[in-house]
Amino acid sequence: MWVYIEKIRDFVEQEVTIKGWLYNIRSAGKLMFPELRDGTGLIQGVVSKKEVSEKVWEDFGKLTQESSVIVKGLITRHPKKEDVYELQVKDLEIVAIAEPYPITPKEHGVDFLADRRHLWLRSPRQSAIMRIRNEIIQSIREYMYNNGFILFDTPIFTPNACEGTSTLFSTDYFDLGKAYLSQSGQLYAEAGALALGKVYTLGPTFRAENSMTRRHITEFWMMEPEMAFFDLNDNMNLIEDFLEYVVQRVIKNKKQELDFLGRDLSKLEKVKKPFPRITYNEAVEILRKKDIPLIRKTENGEEHIRPFPYGEDFGAPHEEAIVEAFDKPVMVHRWPAEAKAFYMKRDPENPKLALGVDVLAPEGFGEIIGGSQREDNLDFLLERIEEHQLPLEEFGWYVDLRRYGSVPHSGFGLGIERVVSWLCNLEHIREAIPFARRPNRIRP
Amino acid sequence: MWVYIEKIRDFVEQEVTIKGWLYNIRSAGKLMFPELRDGTGLIQGVVSKKEVSEKVWEDFGKLTQESSVIVKGLITRHPKKEDVYELQVKDLEIVAIAEPYPITPKEHGVDFLADRRHLWLRSPRQSAIMRIRNEIIQSIREYMYNNGFILFDTPIFTPNACEGTSTLFSTDYFDLGKAYLSQSGQLYAEAGALALGKVYTLGPTFRAENSMTRRHITEFWMMEPEMAFFDLNDNMNLIEDFLEYVVQRVIKNKKQELDFLGRDLSKLEKVKKPFPRITYNEAVEILRKKDIPLIRKTENGEEHIRPFPYGEDFGAPHEEAIVEAFDKPVMVHRWPAEAKAFYMKRDPENPKLALGVDVLAPEGFGEIIGGSQREDNLDFLLERIEEHQLPLEEFGWYVDLRRYGSVPHSGFGLGIERVVSWLCNLEHIREAIPFARRPNRIRP
Repeated sequence: MWVYIEKIRDFVEQEVTIKGWLYNIRSAGKLMFPELRDGTGLIQGVVSKKEVSEKVWEDFGKLTQESSVIVKGLITRHPKKEDVYELQVKDLEIVAIAEPYPITPKEHGVDFLADRRHLWLRSPRQSAIMRIRNEIIQSIREYMYNNGFILFDTPIFTPNACEGTSTLFSTDYFDLGKAYLSQSGQLYAEAGALALGKVYTLGPTFRAENSMTRRHITEFWMMEPEMAFFDLNDNMNLIEDFLEYVVQRVIKNKKQELDFLGRDLSKLEKVKKPFPRITYNEAVEILRKKDIPLIRKTENGEEHIRPFPYGEDFGAPHEEAIVEAFDKPVMVHRWPAEAKAFYMKRDPENPKLALGVDVLAPEGFGEIIGGSQREDNLDFLLERIEEHQLPLEEFGWYVDLRRYGSVPHSGFGLGIERVVSWLCNLEHIREAIPFARRPNRIRP
Repeated sequence: MWVYIEKIRDFVEQEVTIKGWLYNIRSAGKLMFPELRDGTGLIQGVVSKKEVSEKVWEDFGKLTQESSVIVKGLITRHPKKEDVYELQVKDLEIVAIAEPYPITPKEHGVDFLADRRHLWLRSPRQSAIMRIRNEIIQSIREYMYNNGFILFDTPIFTPNACEGTSTLFSTDYFDLGKAYLSQSGQLYAEAGALALGKVYTLGPTFRAENSMTRRHITEFWMMEPEMAFFDLNDNMNLIEDFLEYVVQRVIKNKKQELDFLGRDLSKLEKVKKPFPRITYNEAVEILRKKDIPLIRKTENGEEHIRPFPYGEDFGAPHEEAIVEAFDKPVMVHRWPAEAKAFYMKRDPENPKLALGVDVLAPEGFGEIIGGSQREDNLDFLLERIEEHQLPLEEFGWYVDLRRYGSVPHSGFGLGIERVVSWLCNLEHIREAIPFARRPNRIRP
């Protein structure tokens, strides 16, 4: 019977068939130890010359790395290691002998691997990351589903821009001029929330930013819930409940993969609500106490501004300094309104502040969530659109949401690859998605 | 306590708060009957002049359609109708009075509604469809997750084209020339299957087809599983197991919404495996027996060709005629190879046939699935790429999958909006997605 390696513990002392690929093989006299992978895990086979036919013994000798095989044998417990199993090989069918495989156990450069991403994904590390990504996204979907959110797939082709058009990809769209690829489904999700109560989007978003940092890709997946009758506080309550669920479920269900990546689980186990909530002003105080300057690029290099000035956005070093004292995600709320998007509601207690919240992951993984309460007042929203010089005719439908039954509402956006990077402890976001797209990479 | 209307049956004889919008109101002397919606359902309120304050009574009189409100009251069972509940109103807080709402209970033209899609979505019919769509996609995700498939989000930006470039949208991509928006994640999913065993994609795909039929949109969501070591037969076994699961779960969990749409559930209850499997040749026999011609457009109009010639693809009238005799989805397999894509494996018993399978929904809803076993022989694949005049340099990585551990593998693509249309019995696909994109529509 064909079984997957991940289920092998259910078949101890049974004869099974494994279909997969040769990952590695070593021989010791009259024994060979092929290591097999089938996409769900690795298992070591034991081939004893006296137990198999001459043909099977010889065929094992012919196998190259990544040759595809169908192997029959008996599952046994490893004599010494707990929860490790072996395959006592009885038969082998070669499906295809692989040409010399370019990715060997030696170290390869990053470009070499990225050029061969279609093969690199077969490595135990990359497949562990992909299985964790799968678990993260499924956890998100189930949380949303179980909590009454309706999936609301917002359009990719849009005539308008959420945050300006300079970083948008565009395409010709029949006789209608240009269509822009969505950077965020939020504005549409707001229409969804007023129709369906609680909705979420989860799809690809696009940013034409010519930025080669280790946290940027041009095509990334984002989850954006939007809730009618939620204020900023409800939004933050949801964020911490949601993140706790996802993180705790992932470490429970993907322990093996996380261990394989060398992830320190004790750090993730601490991700339980409540999360610290600090205002933007308090965050600036932290930076000032730690004497972290704002760094501005100038013609002659860099200018370091001390103390960190109120009103400026944070970069990676600031985010790291802010979260340093905490072992949980940190929610930074109430931001200077000028630094934030036009749709954010102002704080009734101080109209210079926007009711936004950014969530910074612990351990210096940076911003994983940006959210806010949305402006629900028709006149204020019209003012903002004018101030930001946005084309009112394109936002007419969005403004309508304040004409017909406006309600307080809030939402946030979560970057999937940022979360994968955080939970897998990745140095570079390129490993967090099957085929990362960056300004210099669109192949394979 | 704030509760959603869909949960109201758990709160009978309890005082609750409903947050939502006025859908309708009628008055009868000293009683008013406001109908409230909150996105999860509708409930009728009963306002008795003698039970509420004068202000509450007057405020109800001011409410326009879609005004947003917070209403407190007692949940009671409807005196006559089973599983229907009412809200005995005690208090009202007006959140916002809506301007005169453009969508009234009278009939509106389709363009009028499509121009106001952000509001049209609030109608009970549209929100029922969106809730069913949510259930369909969640069912798909859970089936995949529970059956060991790993989500494998394939890239949207691609340098190559799965089925020719004439129907592709493109965008400028930094210094790398054009990027094309993916029509299918299949080729990348094949790399995923050889890395991870069983994978699936579920995301938006794009087709720049200037086609205004009731089944086409330019941006549509597709689910594409891909399985290593699956042949065409395994693929068909998966399809029927999968479709049965999704359809049966949706009719179980979304009965109320399907009833509201007037869906004949007895037809959907029959969607249980096994499904009929007929060859392309047998399908042509059906068309010939029914005397359904092939219709070709000519300069002077149309030419009707009888009998239906072998080798031609089916259109809507053919699909309808083929499924007429069946009350389940019909799997049509083994297609003329010239009519099908380059990557399909040829039938070893007849190399003029490709090992493809199309699944036609019952009741004339057309093709919902297209799948195949993929060509796994290096030389044959190279021949096909040449025959189809595809740029080999762009497909080098895809060919690699046959150099390094090639295995038999199969997969299929399922059109989400086609399935939504089928299960909801929609006449037009534009209702199957929140904001449908068509050649003449990109707004709102």
